[in-house]
Amino acid sequence: MRPSGRELNEMRPVSIETGFTKHAEGSALIKIGDTHVLCTATIEDRVPPFIKGSGLGWVTAEYGMLPRATNTRMRRESTAGKQGGRTVEIQRLIGRSLRAGVDRVALGERQITVDCDVLQADGGTRCASITGGWVALRLAVNKLMKAGDVISDPLVDPVAAISCGIYAGQPVMDLDYPEDSEAGVDGNFIMTGSKQLIEVQMSAEGATFSRDQMNQLMDLAEKGVGELVAAQKAATA
Amino acid sequence: MRPSGRELNEMRPVSIETGFTKHAEGSALIKIGDTHVLCTATIEDRVPPFIKGSGLGWVTAEYGMLPRATNTRMRRESTAGKQGGRTVEIQRLIGRSLRAGVDRVALGERQITVDCDVLQADGGTRCASITGGWVALRLAVNKLMKAGDVISDPLVDPVAAISCGIYAGQPVMDLDYPEDSEAGVDGNFIMTGSKQLIEVQMSAEGATFSRDQMNQLMDLAEKGVGELVAAQKAATA
Amino acid sequence: MRPSGRELNEMRPVSIETGFTKHAEGSALIKIGDTHVLCTATIEDRVPPFIKGSGLGWVTAEYGMLPRATNTRMRRESTAGKQGGRTVEIQRLIGRSLRAGVDRVALGERQITVDCDVLQADGGTRCASITGGWVALRLAVNKLMKAGDVISDPLVDPVAAISCGIYAGQPVMDLDYPEDSEAGVDGNFIMTGSKQLIEVQMSAEGATFSRDQMNQLMDLAEKGVGELVAAQKAATA
Amino acid sequence: MRPSGRELNEMRPVSIETGFTKHAEGSALIKIGDTHVLCTATIEDRVPPFIKGSGLGWVTAEYGMLPRATNTRMRRESTAGKQGGRTVEIQRLIGRSLRAGVDRVALGERQITVDCDVLQADGGTRCASITGGWVALRLAVNKLMKAGDVISDPLVDPVAAISCGIYAGQPVMDLDYPEDSEAGVDGNFIMTGSKQLIEVQMSAEGATFSRDQMNQLMDLAEKGVGELVAAQKAATA
Amino acid sequence: MRPSGRELNEMRPVSIETGFTKHAEGSALIKIGDTHVLCTATIEDRVPPFIKGSGLGWVTAEYGMLPRATNTRMRRESTAGKQGGRTVEIQRLIGRSLRAGVDRVALGERQITVDCDVLQADGGTRCASITGGWVALRLAVNKLMKAGDVISDPLVDPVAAISCGIYAGQPVMDLDYPEDSEAGVDGNFIMTGSKQLIEVQMSAEGATFSRDQMNQLMDLAEKGVGELVAAQKAATA
Amino acid sequence: MRPSGRELNEMRPVSIETGFTKHAEGSALIKIGDTHVLCTATIEDRVPPFIKGSGLGWVTAEYGMLPRATNTRMRRESTAGKQGGRTVEIQRLIGRSLRAGVDRVALGERQITVDCDVLQADGGTRCASITGGWVALRLAVNKLMKAGDVISDPLVDPVAAISCGIYAGQPVMDLDYPEDSEAGVDGNFIMTGSKQLIEVQMSAEGATFSRDQMNQLMDLAEKGVGELVAAQKAATA
Repeated sequence: MRPSGRELNEMRPVSIETGFTKHAEGSALIKIGDTHVLCTATIEDRVPPFIKGSGLGWVTAEYGMLPRATNTRMRRESTAGKQGGRTVEIQRLIGRSLRAGVDRVALGERQITVDCDVLQADGGTRCASITGGWVALRLAVNKLMKAGDVISDPLVDPVAAISCGIYAGQPVMDLDYPEDSEAGVDGNFIMTGSKQLIEVQMSAEGATFSRDQMNQLMDLAEKGVGELVAAQKAATA
Repeated sequence: MRPSGRELNEMRPVSIETGFTKHAEGSALIKIGDTHVLCTATIEDRVPPFIKGSGLGWVTAEYGMLPRATNTRMRRESTAGKQGGRTVEIQRLIGRSLRAGVDRVALGERQITVDCDVLQADGGTRCASITGGWVALRLAVNKLMKAGDVISDPLVDPVAAISCGIYAGQPVMDLDYPEDSEAGVDGNFIMTGSKQLIEVQMSAEGATFSRDQMNQLMDLAEKGVGELVAAQKAATA
Repeated sequence: MRPSGRELNEMRPVSIETGFTKHAEGSALIKIGDTHVLCTATIEDRVPPFIKGSGLGWVTAEYGMLPRATNTRMRRESTAGKQGGRTVEIQRLIGRSLRAGVDRVALGERQITVDCDVLQADGGTRCASITGGWVALRLAVNKLMKAGDVISDPLVDPVAAISCGIYAGQPVMDLDYPEDSEAGVDGNFIMTGSKQLIEVQMSAEGATFSRDQMNQLMDLAEKGVGELVAAQKAATA
Repeated sequence: MRPSGRELNEMRPVSIETGFTKHAEGSALIKIGDTHVLCTATIEDRVPPFIKGSGLGWVTAEYGMLPRATNTRMRRESTAGKQGGRTVEIQRLIGRSLRAGVDRVALGERQITVDCDVLQADGGTRCASITGGWVALRLAVNKLMKAGDVISDPLVDPVAAISCGIYAGQPVMDLDYPEDSEAGVDGNFIMTGSKQLIEVQMSAEGATFSRDQMNQLMDLAEKGVGELVAAQKAATA
Repeated sequence: MRPSGRELNEMRPVSIETGFTKHAEGSALIKIGDTHVLCTATIEDRVPPFIKGSGLGWVTAEYGMLPRATNTRMRRESTAGKQGGRTVEIQRLIGRSLRAGVDRVALGERQITVDCDVLQADGGTRCASITGGWVALRLAVNKLMKAGDVISDPLVDPVAAISCGIYAGQPVMDLDYPEDSEAGVDGNFIMTGSKQLIEVQMSAEGATFSRDQMNQLMDLAEKGVGELVAAQKAATA
Repeated sequence: MRPSGRELNEMRPVSIETGFTKHAEGSALIKIGDTHVLCTATIEDRVPPFIKGSGLGWVTAEYGMLPRATNTRMRRESTAGKQGGRTVEIQRLIGRSLRAGVDRVALGERQITVDCDVLQADGGTRCASITGGWVALRLAVNKLMKAGDVISDPLVDPVAAISCGIYAGQPVMDLDYPEDSEAGVDGNFIMTGSKQLIEVQMSAEGATFSRDQMNQLMDLAEKGVGELVAAQKAATA
């Protein structure tokens, strides 16, 4: 039995509120249960030095947590003087995952920065950031297409992410914080709408897992991503 | 005429939503027009070294802005490696202002940290932070009193803040961003519910002002703080 | 009674020694009682990026304290890895105040940096820095005018600053360190020679003050600035 | 055809030289083709604060690259002022992977730090670090057991790592740098000697992969880890 | 011919003003020609961790330059975020040199920090810092002895420093900035009053020198230190 | 008697293995007894801003130590956030010393960076770095000459370094760590193959030395450098 009473393959309630802030070219507040992430997409007419002049676009991401998004207050990273290792790891994952769903030729030589800021955390913030970040990206690209700045849609297949893991010996979908902090194995699965894989990360600390268990988690992940992609489509329709 | 069409002495619409996040002992999302600040109050059973063992409490504040709270994206302070001068100045002001409204003996030897994070900015974020931060502080202290950890109310008189300035040669209340960026004189007025002064800051860049103008701004500020204190009371009733 | 035996409206002895160092385009050692600040002005033929090509000049300031300027040794900010919040706040104030007395069109597209380094501190270092910094600035501008690089004098009205506060329940002028550390209300008043206001900061920590008290401090400040401007004029005659 | 002429499932030559430096409790220079990593294990009689008094041991890792380990010289991280995101990600992975093979009760309350410094890089440095780091760890633990400080062997099953990916449309084992920089999909597989999974990371940048391809990479990885564990055993026999 | 018209073995005018600032236990403003350094000595009842409980004292030094001590303004090290390599090298030299003249048993378990801040630079600032720093140290120790905190004088033999070098092919004493910036060989010689050597540093950039030249510089240095020690004695008599 | 049983004027065994890593234009692993330093030379077609366009070349150096190069593990400088004072001092010395042996006109407008990374330390790492760094530099320049990029040899006279000091009252050559940590006087002598002096540093902490002792150390250093230059020549023949 899961602490929340959910079925093994049941996701928390999902809501996506677009246009949550007014300045960004795209913005969305995604809620996966009690995990709330504000995602904004910013378009800029410049690209990183290493692709300047290539005609290719770039998508990158940054991630942050408000100090009291968590149960006990965390030190603000700006006062610590740097982003922590966990933060850097997460934002590199978000950027890499979103780029996998982008046709950078069609995007043209511009950069879109997706900021994912966790207002409230209850497990699965990196996956919520990818799923919500894609919505912000979608809205920003829509604006480019409407303005005629981009002709062919660079976002052909949506990108979404779900965490699955082994909790109390059972494979479960969409771990919340009480599950996550006890799980023997924790995995993040990033896929496209057509279930192609973008990134798979499975990790056991102080334990191991079998190839069979890995396959059970993959099955759960495919189901979960299907539901998330449906929610993305509904929000951006 | 003001860009927004408001009267010279008219504030923007004010809303205060308490309990916006669940982990903090007190939380409020304050909206002053298009300026939106999420304020949380965290109680900890420790105080800074310089008052350890004194029996006195402490209230401090931190301030941040999401990268795309503004019209163009700002660099994240955690990647810049430090808080900027403006941020430090603002959070010191918030902490000092809130402390002026706290009976530190009644609070007892514990610390309350008020985090003010700007989700969307349109001028007056430091004043909104003080006004909203006081609400979060009020809610956290209510929790302490309800639990019997604090007997006598340490928050005897509310604290609120309003910006007033000289725009297009006229004294105006509650400057929004288009006014703020053009104002010749810009002032922040922090007061108690009974109109006692806590902090007054008036500043002219590339210009000066007379003592008469100073008094006109003081009159506007007293009116504005009255309205904000009423909103605080309604939200925490 | 004040610890120093001064009258309520009596300033400490003021001396301004110009040309204290030889490399800077303008330099002055200002002594307000036991507070000693070395101010230098450096002219450079470049301006910050945001006004490049505008034809406007810029004046900025930096502030520092020698480690043993104070009663107990302070850590050197260069070994701490950054300027503290108080330092940043003060140097922003100095720069803003001096700029308010400068006709940036007349100055032409060049930058003057005023460095204020406290050799010995006894309260009121930020006000001494502004008053002494204006002298260094005056001398540097004189050099530009003598060389014919600037035609019309960009410094039409001098800038000076004084601290006033409520000490032992009484409004007093020019607080020294023993007063400053006990004062209930502390204010900094920056004005021009013609008593126009540039910046007013009044702050109460753990207390409040009335609008009447505010007016009494304003009266003291006007008297004090008058005396400081006279000293500036004598030094640069 | 692979640039090196290797078979799709063929690893580069592996050599492990133990005792390469004299001060560390365990040390090994591992060479996987032209990738050379110096691994040392340091035993300390202290543990991180969060497990103090628990009786449990801790294993952690740090990773670095000499500036000219690579084809073009990289900036030294000590002059950059911090470890880069890639470095932090890698050393967290190494630490997590090694801990999964350690019985922390048997180790007792002490910490072993495994330093992995890349002297020469040609792809696969993180996997070589894990494989070589385990050897250094094994040697350090042997010393503890010989001295009677540890009774029951805390390293029951060896840990090794191999990278596999899709290169030119084909699944290949042990990517060298020319392959790695062109690969569409890149995976790191960390397993125990008995083929239990510790961590699986598969990542596609600007592309996707199918579940079938994932299974082909898993098959290759199982073969590779088997060969690496044999090399570890030979080196520490 | 030297730019200043001095003889090859002639020092610049030396003046040492003690008590230049009032808070420090010892202070002196040393002027060697146009090189002016403010030296203060601070006594603290604590020692670095590595000698805690040993009964031995410690003397350390820090060095800084005001931004406009030099001909063109230098960036403030506090805004650069760290002390530069040259600064660190100099302050380590000052500390080491002064310690060589201190009987650390006689000093007792306390620390004296000597701060050397260059107000105006014209070559030879590190040597002036050592010579002036010793005066500040002497005054602080006098205070300890007068108070009976130290019985036997820990400063048995004074410490002074002089720079000598090869300028225009000739060995010269006490290089000023125009000479220093052109010198082929530059040396710093730190000695006691009885001409025992504490530190010798000779350095040629883009050139070399012979053992004969080295001996000529040594001869000059012995003469110079003699004159400086006389000035120290006169100032502290 | 020396701890190692060596004669007073006897160096430890010296070995220099060239080509230790494959990417660098020049590389050498130098072993002076148990002190092992990996030196690499990197050629780049750019020079520092201050000599751009001058036609002159530049040689610079960086120095590092692996965390467990020493008897107890040291903190990695990249995690400390900066290079320590000792590191900066050493790498400045290495760069200055190597430049003294380079004809910068003959080198032409390019930069060679010599990285010296200590794999194992037992005293004398800075001297080993200079001696080994020169070998890496020699190999890199040979490559430039072979390619016809440089016509006239810019390295006319080799550069080597040896430490000598007063140990147990006796002048000894090539101090190892047990001697170095007990030595009253410690000196580093950098010379050319023809015994011209480049840099001499002699330092006594908590003691002094006479001019006679200085001359004895100079004699030892001349002998030692002769032997090191012979080893350099053998390695690069």
